[in-house]
Amino acid sequence: MTQIDDANATAVRRVLEATPVLVGVGRARDVIPDMADDLLLHAGPPIPWDRMSGPVRGAVTGALLYERKAGTEAEAAVLVESGRIRFDPCHHHAAVGPMAGIVSGSMPVCIVENRRGGNRAYATLNEGYGAVLRYGAYGAAVLERLRWMERTLAPALGRALDLCGGIDMKSLIAQALAMGDEGHNRNRAGSALLGRLLGPHLVRTGLSTGDLSEVFRYLADNDLAALNPVMAACKATMDAAHGVAGSTLVTAMARNGTEFGIRVSGLGERWFTAPAETPHGLYFPGFTAADANPDVGDSAITETAGIGAFAMAAAPAIVKFVSGTARDALTSTLEMYEITLAENAAFGIPALDFRGTPTGIDIRRVARTGILPRINTGIAHRTAGIGQIGAGLVRAPRACFDQAVAAMAAALGR
Amino acid sequence: MTQIDDANATAVRRVLEATPVLVGVGRARDVIPDMADDLLLHAGPPIPWDRMSGPVRGAVTGALLYERKAGTEAEAAVLVESGRIRFDPCHHHAAVGPMAGIVSGSMPVCIVENRRGGNRAYATLNEGYGAVLRYGAYGAAVLERLRWMERTLAPALGRALDLCGGIDMKSLIAQALAMGDEGHNRNRAGSALLGRLLGPHLVRTGLSTGDLSEVFRYLADNDLAALNPVMAACKATMDAAHGVAGSTLVTAMARNGTEFGIRVSGLGERWFTAPAETPHGLYFPGFTAADANPDVGDSAITETAGIGAFAMAAAPAIVKFVSGTARDALTSTLEMYEITLAENAAFGIPALDFRGTPTGIDIRRVARTGILPRINTGIAHRTAGIGQIGAGLVRAPRACFDQAVAAMAAALGR
Repeated sequence: MTQIDDANATAVRRVLEATPVLVGVGRARDVIPDMADDLLLHAGPPIPWDRMSGPVRGAVTGALLYERKAGTEAEAAVLVESGRIRFDPCHHHAAVGPMAGIVSGSMPVCIVENRRGGNRAYATLNEGYGAVLRYGAYGAAVLERLRWMERTLAPALGRALDLCGGIDMKSLIAQALAMGDEGHNRNRAGSALLGRLLGPHLVRTGLSTGDLSEVFRYLADNDLAALNPVMAACKATMDAAHGVAGSTLVTAMARNGTEFGIRVSGLGERWFTAPAETPHGLYFPGFTAADANPDVGDSAITETAGIGAFAMAAAPAIVKFVSGTARDALTSTLEMYEITLAENAAFGIPALDFRGTPTGIDIRRVARTGILPRINTGIAHRTAGIGQIGAGLVRAPRACFDQAVAAMAAALGR
Repeated sequence: MTQIDDANATAVRRVLEATPVLVGVGRARDVIPDMADDLLLHAGPPIPWDRMSGPVRGAVTGALLYERKAGTEAEAAVLVESGRIRFDPCHHHAAVGPMAGIVSGSMPVCIVENRRGGNRAYATLNEGYGAVLRYGAYGAAVLERLRWMERTLAPALGRALDLCGGIDMKSLIAQALAMGDEGHNRNRAGSALLGRLLGPHLVRTGLSTGDLSEVFRYLADNDLAALNPVMAACKATMDAAHGVAGSTLVTAMARNGTEFGIRVSGLGERWFTAPAETPHGLYFPGFTAADANPDVGDSAITETAGIGAFAMAAAPAIVKFVSGTARDALTSTLEMYEITLAENAAFGIPALDFRGTPTGIDIRRVARTGILPRINTGIAHRTAGIGQIGAGLVRAPRACFDQAVAAMAAALGR
């Protein structure tokens, strides 16, 4: 096993040494590699329109309305079915998107640079709560919100980032983990820290008082403002570890609402997929598990990078949102040490006396122990246009890991 | 014991029902009851100049320089020794001050109103780190900082509070406890939340871009920005519970750097005092316990109100600052349930499955169990003008509680 162990040591060192910095905001078509105006990016592994789940179809519809490529839901469907819109996973373009994860050319995206690895990653800006595109809603208020983000929020954040020279996301995540976040479903601390770091610079962007107040209102009201930059930081971190020959490190876990897929450092661009499961969790009033869409979103990049459910011991308050007890939060993290290659000393968990988060999923350990990676997640309604109906817990499907182990054995000629 | 139990039920209900709201900022001479220009307020029980410790004398000197009543340290000493400056505890004026706790007439103070009890409490604004008046420093930079706070910070915060209609401190403290604060030595989350709540309103205060940026810089850099409003919230809470005949509830614990004093709800304005002890903790490089001043400050009002060391289970990260392990943080809170009258459901501790913080110290329970209230605290150098040299843990002296129990027995004719 020396060859694999050596490869994994190289790969996981790149994870631990990554230094993701939020450096700016740009337009998707201008900054995301190989982005195009006839292309929509989506969460998870590749999937054609006819297999997309309700919320992903809803978000595709919303993106086409937002881009003014369609004027109605029906026109959007005709356009997609004409074949004139291409789809690609965000992950194929150094990007990640929460939930449906739809990215279209005009959308502003945050840019995170891994200053150690030299690579960049991208994510949309977070829309906030309620009816939002990422959960498949596409009403007029959703589109107006997206246009405000494009018109006002993105330039303000971009200029503030220019003025402050970037925000060290590794430090921000480390601080947030000491403040009750796990970085996936709970980003209240990270969002508050992001706002306070940007504040002195935002007021120097030259925005009108009204626009400035709206931007501060967005930062004050949105406990998920940091989620998307955190996801991009995790993506920049894991991309740096991808492509190490012989490495069994998982570099992506992502769901398109129909299938769950993983990629492995030493196994190239291939996805190993299985049907996405439905999360267990707490539902908003009026909804039940029968309404839930299967697991969806690229946000499991947080768990892939060793935070999210893997750092749940840092975030006992999250059990009010995803179900469980404080003990469950501790157990969640402790169990993940069994399937990971390293502990990230930069992300110390106070309740575990600053033991580093369990980092770097090894497909061999998953296959050997049968312990499946835990994921904290939001739950989308299965019908397009409705939105979030709860939050909960899910595991990555075992079949993804078994396939990957078999593929690695074949690759190594065993 | 029915009489005492009934009295305590009344007193502690007033604590639990208190709804402290940060409503504004005013000038001490204009808003603090019976404040006067020849009066300086200080932390802890009453103490004359000749018994004040180094850092308290340093802060007195600084306040007289700030008020331009003296031009040099020597002139300040002559003025004080002439008898033309009076001293009073902050606690005698519905106020609290961290460390030396010096308040002079021109200083801006935050105003917290307990909307349930109808009473108000006051605290200075937090100066930040390094050389600061509250630790006894009085150099030119300290005075310039105080003048900036008076000239720029206080009006900005005051106008923003007017615009937002006040900040619910009970909610802010509850959120901060779910984000790793204990509200005394660790206020990073509370300070970040305070800044994000004020942000949208600060930009509407009409300040110049430069001043606005400095105010946001203050909020971004100062993890103790929330400490003083939190202290005032605790003071407003505990004052509402003071004066219930027969109640053995502790309504104040405070230290003047020489003596530790407590007040008890049913025992009027009397202080029960004992020599202040020296905290155990971690020292900044170059300092040792031999440099430490005895325990000082009104900030133990946080523990009196059921947060601070009493809520340490919520703040395991604090052990890096005050010493100990995550287990010690849990133990600290669990032990305090033994000497308190209630659990504050509004302040749930996530790691204890949202069990409320131990709230309302009962002098009888302290005397019976011998368990002394724990306090998290900063450590000042014993010499005037130097400042903070560390942070640590201390207990309230037993003698205060024994005296109070005896006084209650006498008052009840036993």
